[in-house]
Amino acid sequence: MDTSLVLEERGRLSLRPIDAGRPMTPNDVRIAVHTVGICGSDVHYYTHGKIGPFVVEQPMVLGHEASGTVIEVGQAVTHLKVGDRVCMEPGIPDPTSRAAKLGIYNVDPAVQFWATPPVHGCLTPQVVHPAAYTYALPDSVSFAQGAMVEPFAIGMQAASRARIQPGDIALVTGAGPIGMMTALAALAGGCAKVYVSDLAQPKLDIIGAYPGIETINIRTTPAAEAIAQATNGWGADVVFECSGAAPAILGLPQLARPGGTVVLVGMPVDPVPVDIVGLQARELRVETVFRYANMYDRAIALIAAGKVDLTPLISATLPFADSIAAFDRAVEARDTDVKIQIEMPAP
Amino acid sequence: MDTSLVLEERGRLSLRPIDAGRPMTPNDVRIAVHTVGICGSDVHYYTHGKIGPFVVEQPMVLGHEASGTVIEVGQAVTHLKVGDRVCMEPGIPDPTSRAAKLGIYNVDPAVQFWATPPVHGCLTPQVVHPAAYTYALPDSVSFAQGAMVEPFAIGMQAASRARIQPGDIALVTGAGPIGMMTALAALAGGCAKVYVSDLAQPKLDIIGAYPGIETINIRTTPAAEAIAQATNGWGADVVFECSGAAPAILGLPQLARPGGTVVLVGMPVDPVPVDIVGLQARELRVETVFRYANMYDRAIALIAAGKVDLTPLISATLPFADSIAAFDRAVEARDTDVKIQIEMPAP
Amino acid sequence: MDTSLVLEERGRLSLRPIDAGRPMTPNDVRIAVHTVGICGSDVHYYTHGKIGPFVVEQPMVLGHEASGTVIEVGQAVTHLKVGDRVCMEPGIPDPTSRAAKLGIYNVDPAVQFWATPPVHGCLTPQVVHPAAYTYALPDSVSFAQGAMVEPFAIGMQAASRARIQPGDIALVTGAGPIGMMTALAALAGGCAKVYVSDLAQPKLDIIGAYPGIETINIRTTPAAEAIAQATNGWGADVVFECSGAAPAILGLPQLARPGGTVVLVGMPVDPVPVDIVGLQARELRVETVFRYANMYDRAIALIAAGKVDLTPLISATLPFADSIAAFDRAVEARDTDVKIQIEMPAP
Amino acid sequence: MDTSLVLEERGRLSLRPIDAGRPMTPNDVRIAVHTVGICGSDVHYYTHGKIGPFVVEQPMVLGHEASGTVIEVGQAVTHLKVGDRVCMEPGIPDPTSRAAKLGIYNVDPAVQFWATPPVHGCLTPQVVHPAAYTYALPDSVSFAQGAMVEPFAIGMQAASRARIQPGDIALVTGAGPIGMMTALAALAGGCAKVYVSDLAQPKLDIIGAYPGIETINIRTTPAAEAIAQATNGWGADVVFECSGAAPAILGLPQLARPGGTVVLVGMPVDPVPVDIVGLQARELRVETVFRYANMYDRAIALIAAGKVDLTPLISATLPFADSIAAFDRAVEARDTDVKIQIEMPAP
Repeated sequence: MDTSLVLEERGRLSLRPIDAGRPMTPNDVRIAVHTVGICGSDVHYYTHGKIGPFVVEQPMVLGHEASGTVIEVGQAVTHLKVGDRVCMEPGIPDPTSRAAKLGIYNVDPAVQFWATPPVHGCLTPQVVHPAAYTYALPDSVSFAQGAMVEPFAIGMQAASRARIQPGDIALVTGAGPIGMMTALAALAGGCAKVYVSDLAQPKLDIIGAYPGIETINIRTTPAAEAIAQATNGWGADVVFECSGAAPAILGLPQLARPGGTVVLVGMPVDPVPVDIVGLQARELRVETVFRYANMYDRAIALIAAGKVDLTPLISATLPFADSIAAFDRAVEARDTDVKIQIEMPAP
Repeated sequence: MDTSLVLEERGRLSLRPIDAGRPMTPNDVRIAVHTVGICGSDVHYYTHGKIGPFVVEQPMVLGHEASGTVIEVGQAVTHLKVGDRVCMEPGIPDPTSRAAKLGIYNVDPAVQFWATPPVHGCLTPQVVHPAAYTYALPDSVSFAQGAMVEPFAIGMQAASRARIQPGDIALVTGAGPIGMMTALAALAGGCAKVYVSDLAQPKLDIIGAYPGIETINIRTTPAAEAIAQATNGWGADVVFECSGAAPAILGLPQLARPGGTVVLVGMPVDPVPVDIVGLQARELRVETVFRYANMYDRAIALIAAGKVDLTPLISATLPFADSIAAFDRAVEARDTDVKIQIEMPAP
Repeated sequence: MDTSLVLEERGRLSLRPIDAGRPMTPNDVRIAVHTVGICGSDVHYYTHGKIGPFVVEQPMVLGHEASGTVIEVGQAVTHLKVGDRVCMEPGIPDPTSRAAKLGIYNVDPAVQFWATPPVHGCLTPQVVHPAAYTYALPDSVSFAQGAMVEPFAIGMQAASRARIQPGDIALVTGAGPIGMMTALAALAGGCAKVYVSDLAQPKLDIIGAYPGIETINIRTTPAAEAIAQATNGWGADVVFECSGAAPAILGLPQLARPGGTVVLVGMPVDPVPVDIVGLQARELRVETVFRYANMYDRAIALIAAGKVDLTPLISATLPFADSIAAFDRAVEARDTDVKIQIEMPAP
Repeated sequence: MDTSLVLEERGRLSLRPIDAGRPMTPNDVRIAVHTVGICGSDVHYYTHGKIGPFVVEQPMVLGHEASGTVIEVGQAVTHLKVGDRVCMEPGIPDPTSRAAKLGIYNVDPAVQFWATPPVHGCLTPQVVHPAAYTYALPDSVSFAQGAMVEPFAIGMQAASRARIQPGDIALVTGAGPIGMMTALAALAGGCAKVYVSDLAQPKLDIIGAYPGIETINIRTTPAAEAIAQATNGWGADVVFECSGAAPAILGLPQLARPGGTVVLVGMPVDPVPVDIVGLQARELRVETVFRYANMYDRAIALIAAGKVDLTPLISATLPFADSIAAFDRAVEARDTDVKIQIEMPAP
């Protein structure tokens, strides 16, 4: 039983031994965890004890954004070997389910996802994971970047579902961590330029430092006005809604060009009003995003090639021993931090 | 000046001469109108005097669902000749606009559309129309069917944007005229089976008489329940929302399968609540529809081949002299009639 | 050891006991085979002993088009029960392979496919098969039709990859069994009309008997000429090349409309000349087909709904005891038979 | 009558006055030409007198890759004004043709294309052009780059039809000017990495100097081997065939991953053997490219944003007075030059 970061109940974390492992099968690998990023959902379970229908009813290990090193390999595994540096998809589907057979294993209702109750997460020294959902990291990708693949994969899923055409102009509404990931994925994924709008100037400053990304502070300039000016009144080819904010969602039809695309990434808790006639008048296509499928390879390829650099988004790195403090910082520094990572002790 | 059906102002129609024509250009044809269907929008202008931003501020000829016979041909026209039986797209875009160059001329902001203020419609003995938006009818397609091509084209646009895969199971929510058109287009367009839900049994009886279409009366069975049963809990591949009703729109995520498609055809007047997280949880794609583009050829081909028979949807045919009575019937018989047509006198 | 139809070596079949089974796993079902169709590939192994790189080097049970009844169910199986009437996908992929994760398990290099050396086929009284690739047949689908799902799924794959738009005009070149399946899938899958061209009038007569399908005997009328006439010189929206014949392939650019689609279904043994500049001049999209993935549900849905009737394509049904004679007939009657089926004795 | 570069007949150029203009219409602009690039097709007409069915039968002005300045504006033009720096699409379709209505105006059979017999090109001081096919250049795009938009648009069309997914790995076979344009469009259009293969090291050195592009000299390493190594045996997501060489085309199935895409850009003069069964075994999709449609905006956006820098591909710039020498150099320096441009004298 390894010492892990356990959410005992809403608001109470502890570092303590817990039996969170599962037995190796021939298709699994065992991984010594190196780096784990803290996600908004981890923080939400900590502060609220639940997300929608998922309620923390018994102690659960947190964490699902991880990189590490393979330390044991099942007999049937061919594409990994001991010593490989890897990152892991935290969701494990039934590979023969109807959704999985269609290639959309992310929407398989049977998915088991790290740190989604009652499934334990990866803030623990080692994990057993299916090799099929474990991806080797090239030498040029650090453990820190490897642990960023998970959130970046959400941006990749958004960019993929947008079906970006080379040279598109995109707008991302909302500069939270996922908004930033989406902006970088869209830019690397073929957009000529990506605009990002938000109310929080510190976040806009971080993402606006990337070449190719321009920012809109909607305290001073409505996004619709900025986009109209940037596109001669035509509108953005793709709008990625990453704020989850009701006013942003209501205003979507004013942002996209005729025949353009809206991708709904942000998750408003309750139903929100949508201007359906407005969407129809420009015959917009609206895509939605749920986690990701088949994105890790692509995400790693873009990072390894240097087309995407996620390092500037790592706000702080703390040792595992300080992980409760790391979570408390994550709760408080929401407007200035992007990503806090935790490093496990060397095995 | 031909005698036409003129909406003088909200609530007042007259049959009187009016100068509604436009001069021929070399790319135009002149058409003796034969049959004109009454659309819900015609009725709405009659009863309300406006639709959204489009307000009837001066007398306007109604009607936009028309068939007829070519009686004069511009010099540059090559694909039509005098005597051809035809139907016409009522919307005329700027063919070199940015939208038109992309093939989505329906969302060109410059479109001039029959009987949308201040543009006159086609309830008039003859019209001048661009040959490019005038389509020859094969011998096997009657004038009555030809005048149904316009509303059917909306169903075709919905079916086309759905990107139906052969063998899909579809659900149409709402059995109004456009819901019926959409159901028939979806069935001919590749679905194995199309379910149609509504509250009004008479309408369900009409559309349910078509082989391949099954009906759900939501007074007795919730659509979600019926679809779950029909698909072993998987959901419909495509849901065409044709009711415009808020409860139907809110419940969309419960109807479609993981990775499925929703097509928003119905037009709720005001913004309505949408369960965005529900759409995301199944990663649904949401398409919207605005009229149609490049659908007339396809619609005519399906009718001519006998794959779609729109004749059962024609509830009554009245002579032009009775067209005010026809409109009054259209206002009153909303739950039992599908389509009322007006026949012009022989030229 | 059950008595099976064994291809001992090229040209020599026997009915004899052979150990062709595999052990049940918790995810498998055991099926009493009811009906098996003879495919051209079965015949080819019989007459030539190989297909491309696949060589019959040891005795192999033939047959891969099968229906039957579930007689045993693995512990982990939830969607099937003993007594269910079923048909089976003959190819079993590694469900966690890279291709399978993408939803294209048909191109997983690790696929094990019935009656493709050295894998035994299903002309044997019972088979053990993964439940995930076993599909329940509704009551309205007979065992005979159930055994036709496999070849029809190829036509469905072709129709699916074509991305038919409702009202398309299609041409199928080649009226062999797969050409017929493709024509029926394309017609049910949304085409307004499907033309089928061939040299053999008996085959054209069979497929031409279906409403919505028209035939072109290219002995008297070149396909390009017939299509030009049928489409006012525009060309077919989709051309399904099912002949594998070099002249048909060379002439493809003359058949499709500008911006149209070609689907290569027929398999010419050797490389054949293609008019690439011709394809480019109309900017055609060329799709290829390899077996099928995720098509069984859809194929069964279309058959069950009555949109596709495959029964007229069953030329003869022989008892298992006569299966060597059935194969000899299949070798000889190539121009008049479409599909010969073998029925297993009741278990 | 302006002095223009006239191809009098095969092999004979002259600089002389010729009446090549056409009258202004209200939808046209008049442009003072600034820079014109020499295309391989210009050179081919010079050296061979024809390309396929297009034969130079009377003196014709060459040139179709142009930028310039608007000097007169038709009455109906709204998006351009005198003084605007612009570049022009050289093909003018019938905007109401069936192809143009579909958004694929590039395959409209009625297209009039500069310097395609008998249509005069733009190596002349001024041209009259439809405003709809004339695009304003932002300040950050030079005339030299503006004249590169035309060839780059072909690469963009290839990248667009490939439907690149973010993070794809691409291979471009053939490092001629169009191969280079395609590689840059694919890289900017979302690929993680683009490999370019050729026999000519000097060309590989030019394109290999761009970050993100790696080169394969197929004299020493077969492309299939290099790609297998780069992708762990999986294959490229997209292969852009830009060589038009028969061996490259025959070997395409070995280059792409299962379910991948081939884009045929290179134009082999005669039909060439294609390994159709090889394409099928991986179920590849094959796209073809004919010029471009709706690509200029996107191409300009990418150049203006700095995501694509075409300047390194301009090998030399000569004054209009030396344009015959420029053509002779273009004939001779095929293996070392990429693009030669001609600058018109100031108006």
